[in-house]
Amino acid sequence: MTTQFRFIVEKADPTCSARTGVLHTPHGDIPTPVFAPVGTQATVKTLTPDELVDMGATLILANTYHLYLRPGADVIARLGGLHQFMGWSGPILTDSGGFQVFSLATLRKGSDEGVVFRSHIDGSEHFLSPEKAVTIQEQLGADIIMALDECPDPMDYTYNKAALERTHLWAERCLKAHQRADQALFGILQGGIFPDLRRESARFLTSLNFAGYAIGGLSVGEPKTKTWETLEITVPLLPADKPRYLMGVGSPEDLFEGVERGVDIFDCVLPTRLARNGAVFTSQGRLNLRKAQFAEDPAPIEEGCGCYTCRHFSRAYLRHLYKAGEILGLRLNSIHNLHFLLDLMRRIRTAITENSFGQLKKSFLTHYTPANDQGRRRQDLARRRGKTA
Amino acid sequence: MTTQFRFIVEKADPTCSARTGVLHTPHGDIPTPVFAPVGTQATVKTLTPDELVDMGATLILANTYHLYLRPGADVIARLGGLHQFMGWSGPILTDSGGFQVFSLATLRKGSDEGVVFRSHIDGSEHFLSPEKAVTIQEQLGADIIMALDECPDPMDYTYNKAALERTHLWAERCLKAHQRADQALFGILQGGIFPDLRRESARFLTSLNFAGYAIGGLSVGEPKTKTWETLEITVPLLPADKPRYLMGVGSPEDLFEGVERGVDIFDCVLPTRLARNGAVFTSQGRLNLRKAQFAEDPAPIEEGCGCYTCRHFSRAYLRHLYKAGEILGLRLNSIHNLHFLLDLMRRIRTAITENSFGQLKKSFLTHYTPANDQGRRRQDLARRRGKTA
Repeated sequence: MTTQFRFIVEKADPTCSARTGVLHTPHGDIPTPVFAPVGTQATVKTLTPDELVDMGATLILANTYHLYLRPGADVIARLGGLHQFMGWSGPILTDSGGFQVFSLATLRKGSDEGVVFRSHIDGSEHFLSPEKAVTIQEQLGADIIMALDECPDPMDYTYNKAALERTHLWAERCLKAHQRADQALFGILQGGIFPDLRRESARFLTSLNFAGYAIGGLSVGEPKTKTWETLEITVPLLPADKPRYLMGVGSPEDLFEGVERGVDIFDCVLPTRLARNGAVFTSQGRLNLRKAQFAEDPAPIEEGCGCYTCRHFSRAYLRHLYKAGEILGLRLNSIHNLHFLLDLMRRIRTAITENSFGQLKKSFLTHYTPANDQGRRRQDLARRRGKTA
Repeated sequence: MTTQFRFIVEKADPTCSARTGVLHTPHGDIPTPVFAPVGTQATVKTLTPDELVDMGATLILANTYHLYLRPGADVIARLGGLHQFMGWSGPILTDSGGFQVFSLATLRKGSDEGVVFRSHIDGSEHFLSPEKAVTIQEQLGADIIMALDECPDPMDYTYNKAALERTHLWAERCLKAHQRADQALFGILQGGIFPDLRRESARFLTSLNFAGYAIGGLSVGEPKTKTWETLEITVPLLPADKPRYLMGVGSPEDLFEGVERGVDIFDCVLPTRLARNGAVFTSQGRLNLRKAQFAEDPAPIEEGCGCYTCRHFSRAYLRHLYKAGEILGLRLNSIHNLHFLLDLMRRIRTAITENSFGQLKKSFLTHYTPANDQGRRRQDLARRRGKTA
């Protein structure tokens, strides 16, 4: 880690791998464990930076693939970088673009050199290599940047074994290409759900000098039990003094599982995507505001919730906005869902500090009924993979 | 006007009909002349009540027709009325639903009794009478409510003559039906662009005891010169001590023309609708953020503008949000456009107070190039009229 970054573990839970810490970055300190709202196209959908600050966001994610294609990383660089471009003065993390190239884009040709893909926007052809992924992320100027990885189906052993070699090769080349001292480069572990590959990936990448380690290739359709088993195998092999980032995880129940197994950083589109579909988090589970039962419900989404939405508006009003196709509804639901997750992470950090993480997890999950998204997730994945060549 | 309403004219311009005043309502005082942002479906599109307060909105409009159909005026009544439902504690004005019935809905049958129409949402059949228009507006609970009127093509003399009789009959019945002392009922003048009909409408309606007078049937496709001529004929026939409301007017240049001719209240969807199409107001005229020339423009929409958007974001970012289909862009453009009009009205009020309204108008219009929307407006009108039976 460069001198402008420091990660300090503050408190470790004596009964599990949960821990609190602070990640110091050039744009501010991030108390961990942290949930990062996703701002794919240089905006956390529907929200202003001020609203994110108000709800306590300390780190946001932006997608390299999307910003490279539109408006262009060079454009953002000339406009002063991503922080200035989007008016967010806190820490930013960018991914490498790899995941989107292997899912959203149409893949034309992949080799050790890099990948040729077609834009999902206009079909134009582009080339992404490890060096280019670093260059683009330097142009964007996020605080935390990611090495380019290949993202296979997590259940396919042969593909994962081959992809892992390439991911490791690319990791070395990313490290070599990385220049800016004000950016921390993280390596990404792959290996699907296969213990031997995950161990190999952890061994190899921790032998290199990354500022932190992301656990990639999970939460992409594999059974939940496999997700947690893989974490249990992987995390103990990572250095204790570096931050661990579980990519793409963000349901309330999954945050508990990840934190318990030693994860420091999470990101996910789930809260904002659900919000735009009229689904909101409560301490009992998700609530679908589209339902007729809320048509005259004067209660807020959740009694006692301190978010702007719950302090001002009823379920009946939110349902009306949704049914009437009003943008304000998407905003208000997004505010509530992000506030819910950020507040949950605050409570988790406090609980770890006070040696009560296990109790908090138990009491939360006693009341909270998780939604079953596994079927949908697998369909999503199948659909995405169907687009790759 | 009931005891809970008072309209005080404070300053009259010695060289024209412009004037400042204060309209006292149960939900707060409205300095006039005032521009009211439109919240058709109980939300000023994309914005929260807090944002409207921040930009200085003192009156908003909501549409009776839309709210009657969805979620239902009875539902809103049971939820405590429109103020509580939408979280706006300031004054609200509702229209009568007449304009939408005669434009947006499919008209099935009109008689002196009332109109039968089909909902534009689900085709369901409904009946609207003057009494029902008042009842619905009492259920909604706005501070200022409107009598039901018939809204003909402003250029059709025969239709206007017949419609005027019905509008006057309905005005009397609305007054008789009106009960709530905390709501001020305004009459609506009709008569198209025809001086004799306008004079007749003014004479008849001012003989009744309305709390204020709206000038309807303008800004719906007629030539601008006719709009202003009609105002010049109409306004002098209205009582000086009651507020005058020009419905559906809201471009910067038109506000000057209306104020100059003695109008106190304006409303229009223009600023928010333009915003959602990527068009924003500047002191030079409208600017189309979709244009490629703004792709790397680091300047705000307008240098020196105090709105949230201009204080934080560049034209390049706003263009990116628009091109990327991001909701935040619609919000930020809406904030700027409404701020622009509300700020212009503040300047107009100050100028009237300081005897410099004429100078302000001249200097503003020297720099501002109005957009030519007449063609589009006429098309809009023709399209809408094509839907009536």
